[in-house]
Amino acid sequence: MKFKLAERMEHLKTSEIRELLKLTEQPDLISFAGGLPAPELFPIEEIKLISLKVLSNEGTNALQYGPTEGYTPLRKLIAEQRMKAVGVNTTFENILITSGSQQGLDFTGKIFLNKDDVVICESPSYLGAINAFKAYMPKFVEIPMDDNGMIIDELEKALKKFPNAKFIYTIPDFQNPTGKTLSYERRIKMLELAEKYNIPIIEDSPYSELRFEGETIPSIKSLDKKGLVIYLGTFSKTFCPGLRLGWICAEPEILSKYIIVKQSADLQTSSISQREAAAFMQTYNLNEHIDKIRAIYKRRRDLMIEMIKQEFPNNVKYTLPQGGLFIWVTLPENVDATELLKIAIENKVAFVPGNSFFPNGGHTNHFRLNFSNMTENKIIEGIKRLGKILKENI
Amino acid sequence: MKFKLAERMEHLKTSEIRELLKLTEQPDLISFAGGLPAPELFPIEEIKLISLKVLSNEGTNALQYGPTEGYTPLRKLIAEQRMKAVGVNTTFENILITSGSQQGLDFTGKIFLNKDDVVICESPSYLGAINAFKAYMPKFVEIPMDDNGMIIDELEKALKKFPNAKFIYTIPDFQNPTGKTLSYERRIKMLELAEKYNIPIIEDSPYSELRFEGETIPSIKSLDKKGLVIYLGTFSKTFCPGLRLGWICAEPEILSKYIIVKQSADLQTSSISQREAAAFMQTYNLNEHIDKIRAIYKRRRDLMIEMIKQEFPNNVKYTLPQGGLFIWVTLPENVDATELLKIAIENKVAFVPGNSFFPNGGHTNHFRLNFSNMTENKIIEGIKRLGKILKENI
Repeated sequence: MKFKLAERMEHLKTSEIRELLKLTEQPDLISFAGGLPAPELFPIEEIKLISLKVLSNEGTNALQYGPTEGYTPLRKLIAEQRMKAVGVNTTFENILITSGSQQGLDFTGKIFLNKDDVVICESPSYLGAINAFKAYMPKFVEIPMDDNGMIIDELEKALKKFPNAKFIYTIPDFQNPTGKTLSYERRIKMLELAEKYNIPIIEDSPYSELRFEGETIPSIKSLDKKGLVIYLGTFSKTFCPGLRLGWICAEPEILSKYIIVKQSADLQTSSISQREAAAFMQTYNLNEHIDKIRAIYKRRRDLMIEMIKQEFPNNVKYTLPQGGLFIWVTLPENVDATELLKIAIENKVAFVPGNSFFPNGGHTNHFRLNFSNMTENKIIEGIKRLGKILKENI
Repeated sequence: MKFKLAERMEHLKTSEIRELLKLTEQPDLISFAGGLPAPELFPIEEIKLISLKVLSNEGTNALQYGPTEGYTPLRKLIAEQRMKAVGVNTTFENILITSGSQQGLDFTGKIFLNKDDVVICESPSYLGAINAFKAYMPKFVEIPMDDNGMIIDELEKALKKFPNAKFIYTIPDFQNPTGKTLSYERRIKMLELAEKYNIPIIEDSPYSELRFEGETIPSIKSLDKKGLVIYLGTFSKTFCPGLRLGWICAEPEILSKYIIVKQSADLQTSSISQREAAAFMQTYNLNEHIDKIRAIYKRRRDLMIEMIKQEFPNNVKYTLPQGGLFIWVTLPENVDATELLKIAIENKVAFVPGNSFFPNGGHTNHFRLNFSNMTENKIIEGIKRLGKILKENI
């Protein structure tokens, strides 16, 4: 039976890339494609103890329905620990727990976007955000980046040109997919523009606590005196993604809209997962755990960069991220990374072709490499395989 | 800062009822307002053992990202156990795991509804479904019910009159809020109409396994030979709501749309919760657990009905549900249940006024009572308090 669907479904199709990436699930394939954290760092033994503690002390509440806003002690811990770590002074009233920060992206689209409204984002930008917003049928205006992130003059041109722009979407720290970081000066200027044009900034910040070197740059939210920034945080990269725990930090007036939308979307995030994350933060030191993650990811990034230097041809460029999970590779302009991926899969190695990250298409000569999920031996072997493919095919 | 929001946000407002119901969170108040299961039946000790088992045997996968479709063993168990229990022969390929069945409602709106499209539903219908659909700005066409559920002649009139109707939304078993059940004959006729008008039926089935007496009526999905039914299931009422686990059972062509929408909405449901539910079903007998729930809810329903007979004035009518969680009370036409609720809260007892369940408003002379969540002593005392208020105020 063929049913009549909503118009938005024409914009939400399974991508060729997604189908290709399904082929990467072979056990002997070295995949730099996902955005997965290193599973060997998951604190399994600690979570066992925590689970018992939560079920013993508050089993009934952990298994019952709870408030849409989230479990208050977890909201408090996020305000006091995670938001403080990115320089934001806030309280639990400004925190809504979401089912991963992906849900915060979907809600942002739902709250702000009518059909044909404009979303301003980095070029390229996070694939999952693009897809979340596409469900609300906006136009995307892509702002070019250089090594310091979004180019602010280009941003102002876009704000002037598109008065129906509804928000600026940015991943300021170790951006997905480029690994680039927005400079301090540009954060200040972005805030000035947001105020001038009365437009919110969606600061998507999954990687900000994963800096390996260089000085920490304050989050845009921490510099925001006017309530212009809606901050999306997550435990997926600093704790574990399987629990599906993220949050939104925003001023109560706009946060109340997210709460209404959350209620009709899934009532609330898992009562037990929220209590487990809170108990973990009360019992152990999440900062120390993040230090461990940082140390290992730094080693993997160093190794991947070293191997790229050694194995990739000279006409291939790549970014040098100071943190996060990703390196962005740029090939000569005539090369199609999707075609390369097909060859790569045959040779048991994978990446994500870059054009998926450009909401308006084009830009076929890039790909994204993830360095967090593979062991050092696999990084060495995988980059060798990729280097060989590049040498033979570009 | 006031931002420009999407038009849909005008349809999503905090309701007066929700604000009133916040007042019911006092510990000495007897609340028949929520739709909460009995927490004393949560299998806490069993879930402790299960949690340890899952974390010991597959901790890494339980804490990592997983597939959008859900954890395959859980999808298989749902197909083989839960869907079989409602008479449906299906396989895991037809099952998508959702974060509660509320998420299935939101996705249904997202997949089917353009602005001003028509949703056909029972009058009254589930408040959470109405709110989920409202985000997509449809018109609601309410079909009157009698003791056998939706009146089929009225349904056909609506299908003729509204060719832009996108789906029929029904809760056939022990409906929320009325407790009424759609008869077998009407299920057959509803399917015939769905085929004739090429319109899907959304069968929302949270309570179907909670029948206390009378003969089980096959689910609409089990009678569907043409792939017309999209079935929404949940563990919230038969296991525990805190894990946020529901599912959608539908033919692959339409299920693939739900999967695409799920990916952009929250990537996936909790990896660990899915494994815990699967391990519970593999280790214990969920059917036996449901038997326990049924026995206790039956006692509570019996007691509540007995107390209503004894305490409510004669001009108050009420339904006699054969299962589920709710009794629907009808007052004389001139009585406003919202005004009564204010008096009730002062007297430390609460219910949900009925007009929230009518998407187009009106119908102020009803209220919904929940009998699953309160102990027998509280049912006795609460209905006494309510009876006194009714006698004094109507």
